[in-house]
Formats: sequence, structure tokens, C-alpha cells
Amino acid sequence: MSNDVILGKTEYFPGISKISFEGTESKNVLAFRYYDENKVVAGKKMRDHFRFAAAYWHSFCNDGADPFGPGTRPMPWLNNSNPMQKAKDKLDAAFEFISKLGLPYYCFHDRDLAPEGKDVNESADNLKTLAVLALEKQKQSGVKLLWGTANVFSHPRYMNGAATNPDFSVVTHAAAQVKAALDATVYLGGENYVFWGGREGYFSLLNTNTKREIEHLATFLQKARDYGRKIGFKGTFLIEPKPMEPTKHQYDFDVATVVAFLNKYNLADDFKINIENNHATLAQHTFAHEIQLAADADLLGSLDINQGDPHNGWDTDEFMINIYDAVYAMLILLQNNGLGTGGMNFDAKLRRNSTDAEDLFIAHISSMDTLARGLLIADDILKNSKFLALRNTRYKSFDSGDGKRFEKGELSLEELKNLAVSLGEPAQISGKQEKFELLINQYIK
Amino acid sequence: MSNDVILGKTEYFPGISKISFEGTESKNVLAFRYYDENKVVAGKKMRDHFRFAAAYWHSFCNDGADPFGPGTRPMPWLNNSNPMQKAKDKLDAAFEFISKLGLPYYCFHDRDLAPEGKDVNESADNLKTLAVLALEKQKQSGVKLLWGTANVFSHPRYMNGAATNPDFSVVTHAAAQVKAALDATVYLGGENYVFWGGREGYFSLLNTNTKREIEHLATFLQKARDYGRKIGFKGTFLIEPKPMEPTKHQYDFDVATVVAFLNKYNLADDFKINIENNHATLAQHTFAHEIQLAADADLLGSLDINQGDPHNGWDTDEFMINIYDAVYAMLILLQNNGLGTGGMNFDAKLRRNSTDAEDLFIAHISSMDTLARGLLIADDILKNSKFLALRNTRYKSFDSGDGKRFEKGELSLEELKNLAVSLGEPAQISGKQEKFELLINQYIK
Amino acid sequence: MSNDVILGKTEYFPGISKISFEGTESKNVLAFRYYDENKVVAGKKMRDHFRFAAAYWHSFCNDGADPFGPGTRPMPWLNNSNPMQKAKDKLDAAFEFISKLGLPYYCFHDRDLAPEGKDVNESADNLKTLAVLALEKQKQSGVKLLWGTANVFSHPRYMNGAATNPDFSVVTHAAAQVKAALDATVYLGGENYVFWGGREGYFSLLNTNTKREIEHLATFLQKARDYGRKIGFKGTFLIEPKPMEPTKHQYDFDVATVVAFLNKYNLADDFKINIENNHATLAQHTFAHEIQLAADADLLGSLDINQGDPHNGWDTDEFMINIYDAVYAMLILLQNNGLGTGGMNFDAKLRRNSTDAEDLFIAHISSMDTLARGLLIADDILKNSKFLALRNTRYKSFDSGDGKRFEKGELSLEELKNLAVSLGEPAQISGKQEKFELLINQYIK
Amino acid sequence: MSNDVILGKTEYFPGISKISFEGTESKNVLAFRYYDENKVVAGKKMRDHFRFAAAYWHSFCNDGADPFGPGTRPMPWLNNSNPMQKAKDKLDAAFEFISKLGLPYYCFHDRDLAPEGKDVNESADNLKTLAVLALEKQKQSGVKLLWGTANVFSHPRYMNGAATNPDFSVVTHAAAQVKAALDATVYLGGENYVFWGGREGYFSLLNTNTKREIEHLATFLQKARDYGRKIGFKGTFLIEPKPMEPTKHQYDFDVATVVAFLNKYNLADDFKINIENNHATLAQHTFAHEIQLAADADLLGSLDINQGDPHNGWDTDEFMINIYDAVYAMLILLQNNGLGTGGMNFDAKLRRNSTDAEDLFIAHISSMDTLARGLLIADDILKNSKFLALRNTRYKSFDSGDGKRFEKGELSLEELKNLAVSLGEPAQISGKQEKFELLINQYIK
Repeated sequence: MSNDVILGKTEYFPGISKISFEGTESKNVLAFRYYDENKVVAGKKMRDHFRFAAAYWHSFCNDGADPFGPGTRPMPWLNNSNPMQKAKDKLDAAFEFISKLGLPYYCFHDRDLAPEGKDVNESADNLKTLAVLALEKQKQSGVKLLWGTANVFSHPRYMNGAATNPDFSVVTHAAAQVKAALDATVYLGGENYVFWGGREGYFSLLNTNTKREIEHLATFLQKARDYGRKIGFKGTFLIEPKPMEPTKHQYDFDVATVVAFLNKYNLADDFKINIENNHATLAQHTFAHEIQLAADADLLGSLDINQGDPHNGWDTDEFMINIYDAVYAMLILLQNNGLGTGGMNFDAKLRRNSTDAEDLFIAHISSMDTLARGLLIADDILKNSKFLALRNTRYKSFDSGDGKRFEKGELSLEELKNLAVSLGEPAQISGKQEKFELLINQYIK
Repeated sequence: MSNDVILGKTEYFPGISKISFEGTESKNVLAFRYYDENKVVAGKKMRDHFRFAAAYWHSFCNDGADPFGPGTRPMPWLNNSNPMQKAKDKLDAAFEFISKLGLPYYCFHDRDLAPEGKDVNESADNLKTLAVLALEKQKQSGVKLLWGTANVFSHPRYMNGAATNPDFSVVTHAAAQVKAALDATVYLGGENYVFWGGREGYFSLLNTNTKREIEHLATFLQKARDYGRKIGFKGTFLIEPKPMEPTKHQYDFDVATVVAFLNKYNLADDFKINIENNHATLAQHTFAHEIQLAADADLLGSLDINQGDPHNGWDTDEFMINIYDAVYAMLILLQNNGLGTGGMNFDAKLRRNSTDAEDLFIAHISSMDTLARGLLIADDILKNSKFLALRNTRYKSFDSGDGKRFEKGELSLEELKNLAVSLGEPAQISGKQEKFELLINQYIK
Repeated sequence: MSNDVILGKTEYFPGISKISFEGTESKNVLAFRYYDENKVVAGKKMRDHFRFAAAYWHSFCNDGADPFGPGTRPMPWLNNSNPMQKAKDKLDAAFEFISKLGLPYYCFHDRDLAPEGKDVNESADNLKTLAVLALEKQKQSGVKLLWGTANVFSHPRYMNGAATNPDFSVVTHAAAQVKAALDATVYLGGENYVFWGGREGYFSLLNTNTKREIEHLATFLQKARDYGRKIGFKGTFLIEPKPMEPTKHQYDFDVATVVAFLNKYNLADDFKINIENNHATLAQHTFAHEIQLAADADLLGSLDINQGDPHNGWDTDEFMINIYDAVYAMLILLQNNGLGTGGMNFDAKLRRNSTDAEDLFIAHISSMDTLARGLLIADDILKNSKFLALRNTRYKSFDSGDGKRFEKGELSLEELKNLAVSLGEPAQISGKQEKFELLINQYIK
Repeated sequence: MSNDVILGKTEYFPGISKISFEGTESKNVLAFRYYDENKVVAGKKMRDHFRFAAAYWHSFCNDGADPFGPGTRPMPWLNNSNPMQKAKDKLDAAFEFISKLGLPYYCFHDRDLAPEGKDVNESADNLKTLAVLALEKQKQSGVKLLWGTANVFSHPRYMNGAATNPDFSVVTHAAAQVKAALDATVYLGGENYVFWGGREGYFSLLNTNTKREIEHLATFLQKARDYGRKIGFKGTFLIEPKPMEPTKHQYDFDVATVVAFLNKYNLADDFKINIENNHATLAQHTFAHEIQLAADADLLGSLDINQGDPHNGWDTDEFMINIYDAVYAMLILLQNNGLGTGGMNFDAKLRRNSTDAEDLFIAHISSMDTLARGLLIADDILKNSKFLALRNTRYKSFDSGDGKRFEKGELSLEELKNLAVSLGEPAQISGKQEKFELLINQYIK
């Protein structure tokens, strides 16, 4: 990757230059203290562990509006009244930011990159136009596309769903958008393509045929997959679970639900799962739980990096800065050979009242450092502590003898019962949870 | 079913006689106002719609203890210090209550019916002894066994799980208990056999190998299924989802998770799902949602009837008295041909401070009447309102033409895109949720 | 109140005429089945029990935008590009709707009624201009102003709070808005004036001086109160609690918190509490709980009528159609002589996909009928059931003798202890909760 | 404090000797890495910052029972069948543990220390007998009593409440218990006396007169306060808020509610608040929030140290090991001169499957070290970072001029409005939340 900062005609973040690594003693909030991209940890460069990506929508489109007020954030690249020129200015701002921060990847929705046109074809043309410019930026900067996606939830036509809309004509529009977004993703060398079904769910069971809607979703995804493969997409399709919001219930509720769906509809060879921390906690799970379940199913695809507030029941999309979350996630990733074609996308937004230009840098640096720190701690734990040994020992009775035969399915219920009689009352074995937890705190440095 | 009240040597609920139907004008709290067991609704007697069952544990074992204090409730049938005599007295009390209330079914855990013995064989013998007595009671009363199950969560040996315990020897004891419980269930003509994995989950991911534990669970269930079929069990195996409590996370989190599990491990031909309202809401779902999802997957088995408190985050197991919950549930059941071998088990408990003998009757009557009322309302809605027509109309674009071709998988993404172009911007169609909701209120009488 | 429909130059809801009462047998979704405004219940006309009000913001300004997409709803009165003309058209639409529905009241924020101007004085002038027009509409229609308020949460200047903003100059702008809104409210004969502190709270404790901010809030309210009284406002000031959203924590968390605040800062003689159902449930309380607590403190002011979704953790502001909520609320109101100067404001919005013009009518009718039905049921319970007697009996030991002396504070701890010795172990008395609950279901007809 | 280990006739934790400080490089789970009791931080010894206390109930009485199964934990000091001898053995075990761990304080409920007798007087006598023995242990060990309390929630007679019971005779029994517990607390030199109203709340509003019950609670507390002062108690009375569980709603919901209650009933001169982390989060607050609110009201009394699970809605009472919680709490305590007569009581329990004798030590050590670490980090932040300067700068407009006049109440609403006109639109000031958060992570070492 180039170390150069990529500016357009205007410098949108003046006074902020390329962010560099200064080490843990630094108190500079515009420098990395842990993230040293070329440092090798567990046999891989830091940058290859994380494959960090900028989220186009939050960082370059989101002006701080919330349901109780309009935008607050100065975003001079959004000032031009011509939608296409605005899109080009935004592209300049995006690559300036990405290259100053040193992110190797970015992600976008079709409508982040280019404006909706007056009809299906103009919309597709707009996207193509911007994709040409984006490819140029990619080449200049060495930045790559982690994934593309289509926003089939914002436009009013999707108010009753996109692929699951009760009106077939809406489904065709969703298909048109996905086709164009897939075209752009392939053109830009995107390594993944994501589906987040923001409106694929229901507000009320009363007016909904859940069975028919879910089957429509499956058919839609099969057709999108077929088209993607036909045009040469070699990457991974991803589904991003979320339990609710904006819907009362979203069909892709959590990892377990999506695993079931992918298996049922023969999508598991092409699709994996894109897990977001705040979506996990809205579903009453931890981020680590969702990552582990996806890894267990060989369906761990990519991560959306953010965190929620444990007492606020909506998607607050805060920058992930909790060291524990980072350690738990990295422990699992290190044991599962990382993320494959996936990466870590900063699907996070500044608080509405964080309005200085530097705030966007500080927030990303803070989160990147948290993850880098999590990697270093997790690596230390796995290499230098008894963590794995303690856990493996708990299951050793299944590593040989009758336990192993049970695992292989060789013992009937009656044989198991007879073993209970002969083994007698089992000895009590502490779960040692507090010891495991103390150990994690020992390694947080 | 016999109309006789079945008493043992002692009458445990003196002053309360057989509960009768008195109609909606009655203000007698010890009479039915809606539940008229032989009344035919939608082509079936009320009793056959519901197949109501007493829950042995809550109604005859649970004395009101909670984590902050011991039992409060006078239960004279638990006074004998000899465990086997106590179990016999409890059986008398149970059948007195069941027959006075007119419930056609009951459900039990092995340890509800008979006490644990000094070892595996004595425990099995105790259960056999009580099963003989229970069969006699069944014959006298006409009451039948809806389902049996094994309590493999209370004993300290299961503190780290039963089928998912990291220690194989504990798994064998769980197998021994399940074998004996299956024997008893078959002996008693039980129509279903239930697995609720109260400890099958984790407190901490740190000390847990989720993949291995879940595979152990699958193997265990396969072996139990094989044994059940071998000894002639013709009924349905059921899994009861719950998201958490006592564990931090239970593997059978919700219906979607269990559907996935059953399909992955080839259990779906023998197993269905037993859905509990309070478990549904703890998982952030409605009861209706869970019932609908199970019905969509052809895995709707049976229902545990209760309700939780929306602001208390544990299993309060209150008697279900919310008319809306009853209407929504019955709407789905009536559209899905009911519950098959399943029924409605009152997995509900009195509040700790409800200590009069009549309270147990009042609570059951209140809940039975709520469900009967829900049935009458749902039947009225389906027969006399535009409810179904309104809903079906929303999907009519898929009933013919290109929409139907899409449903059959005959349209590629490109063809869909071309249709978008030719169809143009879809007309806006209101979801009419408020109208659907008003309609439900119109039919609540 | 006039029965006339008040139209402006354009009829915005063509095809819908004045909504009339048709009785419970009607299946017309554009008629009242329970709300018969002149029917006398418990000594008062229905309309005087409820004092229903339209919420200007939801019903005439809110186009269905949510955090995931823009507005969906056709609102032709918002089409004019001139802000002042748009405000006038909106006023026409509002009074057409209000008069067709037969609502006796309405409520507004300053910015709902009139657009923000280029500075403080122009904003105030805009509001004055519209207030003159609104007064005319009030006179024509007989509709009155239940309450006014100032929107000091939407504008970016309030992103760090209004009265609690760390920057004093922002506080002055909030004061300017409140002054103008009070002027307008008094001019229009408003019976109450509301404060909802949408941004009065924090996102992070780290950057917040809670003590100083809360004291600023108190000072601000004292000054607003003084000004209101000075200009002749005779009505009630109201604070509307909400626990969170948009903030992580709002200072006016719930009724208990607001009661404490009003008492601490000597505001309780002028202020009462405006309780919203969805805000109550976001604070883990029931609507009835909040109403009861406010009534106990003699601070029950007014109600915002809506309901939330028990599994969605944000303010969904659905129309309140749950009969139970209505019965519980009306039971308390009937026992506490109603709402005084307050009323019931429909702070509720259509679902984003409810886009037909009639939907707004259906939703209001459904909710008005739910409350009217709740009133009838509650009145029946209080007059014809044992509900109150059952409850009062529980406390009878405090109505005389030593219990009464305890209530008067005449017994020391030692005397109480001596009574424990002489009284011996108390007899067990069931709480009879299930009987109380059955009784409520009996009266829902 | 003595460094000696205090053993009874039996050593209950053999193989574990006095826990010592070994420093951060140690990997010994039975040693302190941060808690160095005599180390001076911010002008005070570590032990005086924390005043750590053992919780008698969890650590010496709680055998691991939960609603789904009986106890699991070997507690040999509970084996004697004679209740009084068992209480004495428990006392031996408690002081062995406390002295081996080096805790300076302990806390108890009356029923933890001594068994309930056959009547009021025998119960009081039992408590006196054990208090004599406990005083001896205190003298031997130098350990002191942080607080005593009465368990007026477990016994069935309190099923409908204690001080708020609808039956006056139950109130007298609660008074008898509190009198005896106050006697014992004063005798043992207890520095505080706590009220946790576990059953002071309701299950159903239907059968409850909230106003009368809350007034009864206030009267009860006034009488207890009067008695305590009369017998020479010089310490602090404490109320411990909890929102729910076992009740549906507890009257002492959270800090804001208790502040209001104490002020309304003239209790604030004698009472302060005992805040528990898990109770805070059940009420949708952070621990830091509750501590800050109590400090703002000059009512911060003491802390119950534990943590909950963000996705489990009941009181899991885990040992507090989250470094962030510790840092936030210590930041507030250091700015508020600590806890006065209060301390930090480990109201936490082992997981049910943590059954080794060492587990209780590991859990306490882990939590003590977490808090010690939090102290060191907070002290570093306050001394060496810009944290306080950054925060204070936000409010500087109120430190002089018109802002200061506003704070003093010298500006009317009209004057404020005029200032808005003259000041014009305020400059935008970022809240810098992400910078504050980054700063905290910088200091976690």
C-alpha cells in the first residue's frame, strides 16, 4: 500500500497529516499507540489480521441527524447542489481520509457512492460513472474494496420490504439495484458482497405471511448469487444479521438464524456471515458468542466493528473501544485462522455532538488501537498462559475410551446407562470460571 | 373422560368440587365462563383444541420458594418424611386436582413423580413403582399423559451441563435418567417426550468448547430417539427452547435456533418444538412469532402455557391471562390444524404470596377461560371478518404471472432487473397495520 | 364544540367526512364504536374524561422518515416551498383533521406551528403570525389548545443540551424560544405548558458535570415559570419524563425522578407531570405505575397516549390500542378525579408503511375507542365488582387500633417489637393476585 | 489490623495461607498483583480507600442453589445439624477466610449470623449469643463490622412485604427483627446499618395501595432511626436501591427514587445510599451513574461490589472484574473524598459450578485487584492527564459574567432572551466524547 495521502482538488481535513505509529508511551491522540501495520504478530502482519475498512455511509454521508433533529456535522464535501458533483467531492473526501488514516480497505452501498437517478437505468449509470472514478482512486492509493452492497431499505418503495415485499414489482427494483451493485463490486475488485436486510422483516405478524416472505428472500439471494458467479465474482457473499430496527423483527435475527437459513436454502457454499457487535448485543448475545457460533459453522465471514450501549435498546453504532470485546474477538480469530476474504469494517458513527474534523480521526484511531491491543493480548494469552490447556483439560474424558466412542456415536442409550451404573456418581469438577476471568485481566496490559 | 373426582385417602382440596361451565354471565371464580369442553368450535370440541395438561412440578411440587426465601404454600401432600410415601400422597393430590378441574392431561419430570434413589438403579425403580400407581390413576380418571421428561438440570452433578457436560461420566448419568423416563413415558402411554436443556449452555465462553458441546447434545438426542423408537414410542419428541436462565446462554435459544439444530443433525423427522410464551419473550420474540416460525417449518409440537412480565428479565411463569396472546396463538393454530400430538401444558406457577388452596384453581380456570375465549374470537375473525382476505390480497402479485414465475425460481436477476425497467416505479401500497389491529379489537368481546 | 368540519382552501382528506358514533355492532372502521362524546359515565361526559388532543408534530409534520430512510407519507400540505405558506397549509390540514375526527384539543411545539426564522426575533415573529391564524381556527371550530411547548432539541445548537448545555449562550437561545412559546400558548388560551427535555441529559458521564447541569435546568424552569405567571398564564406547567433517547440518559428519567426534582427545586406548586406510556415502558415501568405514582404525589398532570413494543428498545410511539392499558389507566383516573387541566394527547405515529390518508383516522379512532372502552369497563368494575372492597380489606388492620397508631407515628420500634411478641406469628394471608386478575378479565366485554 | 490468620477448631480452607501482595508480574492466582493494602495513593492507604468487606450471606451461607437446583458447594461449616453449633462453625469459617484474605471488614444479616428461633425473643437471644462470639473474633483479628442488617424478606411471613405488609402484625415482626439487628450492630461497633427492602414493593398494582405502603415504609424507617440513635448508634443508616426481583417493582427502585424518598420523609440527615452495581444495571443505569447521582445529592454512603450480565435480566451478582467499571467508580470517589463511613462489600457470589475451596479466594482477589488497579488508573488520570481540564473547560461560560449570574438566579427569562439576541447564534462546540474515551484507554495499563 502506498504511504501517500490522496487529495482531491480540496483538502477536506486540513491540518491533519498521515497518522503514524508512535508507540504506547505517546499521548498524541492523532497517532497510533498499538496499531503498527507492518508488525508481525502470530505470523502475520497486523494489517493482515484486521483488514480494516472505512464505512462510506457513516464516515462520509452521515451528518449526525437522528430521529429528534437534523445533521450537525460540517461536511463540506456535501455542499454542492449537483448530486453527481457532490458524489465526486465525497469520493475525494473519502480517499483523503482513508489514505491519511492508512486504512487498506473501504466499503459502500450503491447510494453512498452515487445518487439515485430518475429511473433504474439512470441509477445504474450514475453508479458506473462513480465506479470508474473510484477505481482510479483505488489505483492511486492502493486502497481496496472490502465489500459493496445495495441500499434496498431507504427508498420509500422498500417500506414494506425489498426481496420480501408483498408486491412483486418492488422485488424487481431490488433486483435491479443488486445487479448494478454487484456489477460495480466486481468492477472494483471487491472481495465480498454484503446483504443486510434492513426492511426484510415485519412490523406486525397480522398482515404478514412469514413463510412466503422468507422463501422469496431465499429465491432472491439464489438469483443474486447466480448472477454474481456468472459475471465472475470470486469473493464471498455475506449476510449481516440484525434482530430488529427499523423493523419490529428482522428475518436475519442472529447468527444461529442465518446459519439455519443458509443451510436450508443451499446457500452455505457461497455465503458467509458478517457479524456486527451492536447487532449481536441487540439480539441479547455477546459479539464473541456470535463470532464463535459462525466459526463453529464454518460461516465466519467478516466483522462490522462497533459497540452498543448496554442500556439503550437501539443501534447506537459507537466506535468499539472496549478492550474486553477486542480480546475476546481476537482470541477466537487467532484460533480460527482469521477472517479469510473478510475484514473489519468500521460500521460506527461519531456521537451527534462530536463535530470537529479531528473527531473522526480520533474515533477511528481509538478503535484501531483497541483492536491492535486486543490482538497483542490474545496472542500473549494463547502463547504464554494456561488458558487453552485449562479449557482442553475440561473435555479430556472425550479424547479417548468410552467418551471418544460416545463422540463417534458408537454408544447406545442403554450402553450409556450401563456405564453410569459402573462409573457411579461422578466426581465434582469446578468450572473455574473466576480463574479463567482473572487470567484475562492478568494479560490486559 | 370420566366426570368423577378422583380422591386418595385424604381430600387435599376440601370444599372445592368439580369445576363446571356456567357461562359468561357467571361471576363465580370457581366456574368456567368460556371453557365448555364439549362445545364444538371450528369442527372440533374445545377440549380437543387445547388438550390442556397439568404441570406436575409447578402445581404439586413447587411450594413458592424463590432465590430470596423458602416456600410459603401449604402443601399437605408433601408432609410425609418418607420420600416414597410423599410421592404417593403427591400423586393423590395431583389426580384430585386434575379431576376436579377437568383437565384431560398431565405432564411430569421423572423427579416430580418419584424421588431420586441412592444410585441409578434405585432411582429407576422408584420411578417404575410410581408409574404403576400413576397408570392406575389414569385408568380411574381417564386422564392421560401428555408428556414425560427427565430432570437433568437440578442435581449438582449437572451443574456443568447434562448431555453437554465436559465430563463424560455425567453424560452417562443423564442417559440413565432419560432411559428410565422414556420407559415410564411409554408405559404410561405418553403422547410426547420432552427435552428442556436447562443446563445445556454456558456461563462463560472462556471455559467452553461450544462446538463440541453442541455435537454431544445432538449425539445424545439421536441415541435417545433410537432407544425410544426401539421400545415402541410412537409419539413425538419435543425440544423446548429457552434463551437463558439458569445459564447465561442456553443452546436451544429460540425456535429458529432449534429448527436449525434439528435439521442439521437429522432429528426433524422425530422431533418437534415445545414453545413456551415466557421463553419466547425472554428471547425478545412474541409467543405468536415463535408459534408461527415453528408452524412454517412444520415443527410445531406443543405449547407451554404461561406469560412473563415485560419488565422483569427472568422466567416469571405467570398464568397466561392476556386475551391478545390467546387470540394471536389461536389464529395461528386454527390456520395450521392445531397441535397434533401436542397440547397445552400449564407451565405456570402461582405468585409466592398466593397461598390459599383455591388460588391454584382460580389461576388455572382464569387461564383456561382466556384460551377458550381466544379460540372463540379467533374462529369469529377467521369466519366473519376480512382478516384473511386483507392479508392474502397483499401477496396477490405472486399468485400469477411473473410474480408466480419468481416464486418458482424461473426468473434470473437480469430478468428481474428488466422487469423493473418495464414496470417502472411501483405504486405505493399501505401496510394497513392499524386497520388490522383495529379489526382484532373489534372481535374481542 | 361545533360539529362543523373546518376546511381551508384545499380539502386534504377528501372522501372522509365527520366521524360519528355508530355503536359496538358497527364494523365501519371510520366510525366510533365506544367513544360517544356526550355519553355520561361516572357523572361526566366522555369527552370531559379524556379531553383528547391531536399531536401536531406526529400527525401533520411527521412524514414517516426513520433513521434508515426518508419520509413515505403523502402530505400535500407540506408541498409549498415557502415556509410560511407551508405552515398555513399545515394549519388548514390540522384543523380539517381535528374537526372531522371531533377532537376537542390540540398540542404543538413552536416549530410545528411556525418555521424557525433567520434569528431569534424572526422566529418569534413567525410564531406570532401563525398564532393569530390558529386562534381564528380555534374560534371557528371550538377546538382548544391543550398545551404548547418549545422544541429545544432538534436544532443543531442544542446538540449538547438546551437548558443544560455547557455553553451559556445556548441556554439563552433556549430561553428565547421558551419565552416565545409561552407567549403563544397564553395568547391561544393554552391550558398547560409542557417541557420535554429531549437533549437534557448526557451521552457520556466522562464529559459531563451532572450536578451543575441539573441545577441549570432547575434555574431555567424557575425563570420560565416566573415569566409565565407574570404574563398571566393560569394553567399547569408540565414535565414529561423519558429515560433515554436521543440521549443515553435523560435527567427526567421517570415519574419518581421528576417528583424528586420538582420538590427539591420548589417547583411542585406550579408543575405537574405529563406521562407517556412508551416512555414509561422504556423506563421499565408500566403506564399504570407511572400514573399511580404521580397521583400519589398529587402531581398527575396530563397523559401522552401511545404504546411501545415490549421487544423493541426505542420509542416506537404506536397508537395505544391495548385494552388492558386503557382499563388500568382509567381505573386510576376514576379513583383520582381525572386529569384536571390535563388531557390525553395522541403522541403516536402511524407505522412508516401506513400511507393511506384514511390510516391516520383509523389509528386515532382505534385508540379513542380503546380508551372509551377502558372507561366503561373501569366504571363497571368500580361500581359493580368487589375490586375495591377486596383491596381495601387487605389494609384494614391499619384502619383502627395499633395499626392506626402506627400510621400516625405513635408507636416506637420497641413498642412495635413488644406487639410482635404479644401478637405472635401472623396468620398467612394470600395476596389473591390471580383472583384480582381474573376479575379484570371478567369485566372486559 | 493483625496479620494473623484466625482459625477455629477446624481449618476450613486448608492449604491456603494468608494472601500476600506479589506485584503485577506475578502469575499466582492466590496473590494480589495490585492490592497492596498499605501503599499510599492520593494521600491515603489503599485499604482506607476501599474498606473492603466480606458478605456473610454469599460467602459463608450460599451453597450455590438456584431456582433450578439445590446447592452444589461443599461448605463443611454448615454440616452440623444443631443450628446454633452450625452458626458457630460458620463464624469460624468466616473469620478464617476474612483473615486469610486480609479483609478489614465484614457485613451480615441477622439470620446469616444466627438462626431464627421459635419466637421473637428466642431469635433475639440467638443473635445476642452469636454477637458475643463475633465480638471476640473481631478483637482477635482486628476485623471490624462495616454494617449489619435484618433479613426481613426470606421468612414466609414477609411474602407480602415487611414494613409495607398490608397486615400490621407482620410490620411488628419486622420491627422486632430490626430492633435486634440494630442492637447487635451497635454492640459490634458497626459503622453503618443497612435496609434493603427485598419485598417492599409489589407483584401487582391491582391489589396494592402504593401510597399507603410507601408511607408505612417511611414511618418504619423513622422509628428505626430513632431507636438506633437512642441506643447510641453514631454511624450511617443506608438504603440499598434495587428496581425489582423478587418483586415485580421494588419501591427503592434506584438512587433518584431513594433520594426523593429520603428528602420527602426527613430521613436525609441520617440516611445515605448503598449502591450495588448489579442493581444499577437492572435499573438501566451504569454503576458510575448511580454513584455520581448519590454524590451530587451528598447521599453517597457505601458500595456493594459486584457486576451483572448485560444480557441476563436478573441479579447475577458476579464478582466485579471489569476494569472500566472500577476506573469510572474510582474517578468519582477520588473527586468526592471517598466513602466516609461506608466501604466496599463483596455482595457477589461464585457461579454455581465453581466448587473448589480456592475459587472463593480467587474471585475475591480478582475483584480486589480490579478495584486497586482502578484506583491507580483513576489517580493517574486525575493527576497526569487533561481529563479534568477538558471537562471543566466545557462549563467555563458559567464561571463568570452573565453565565455566573444565570447560575445565581439573577437573570429573568426576558433577560436571557435579550442575551440570545445580542449574542447571536452560538458557535458549535464539539462534545469530544471519543477523545475523552480514548484518554481513559490510554491510562489503562
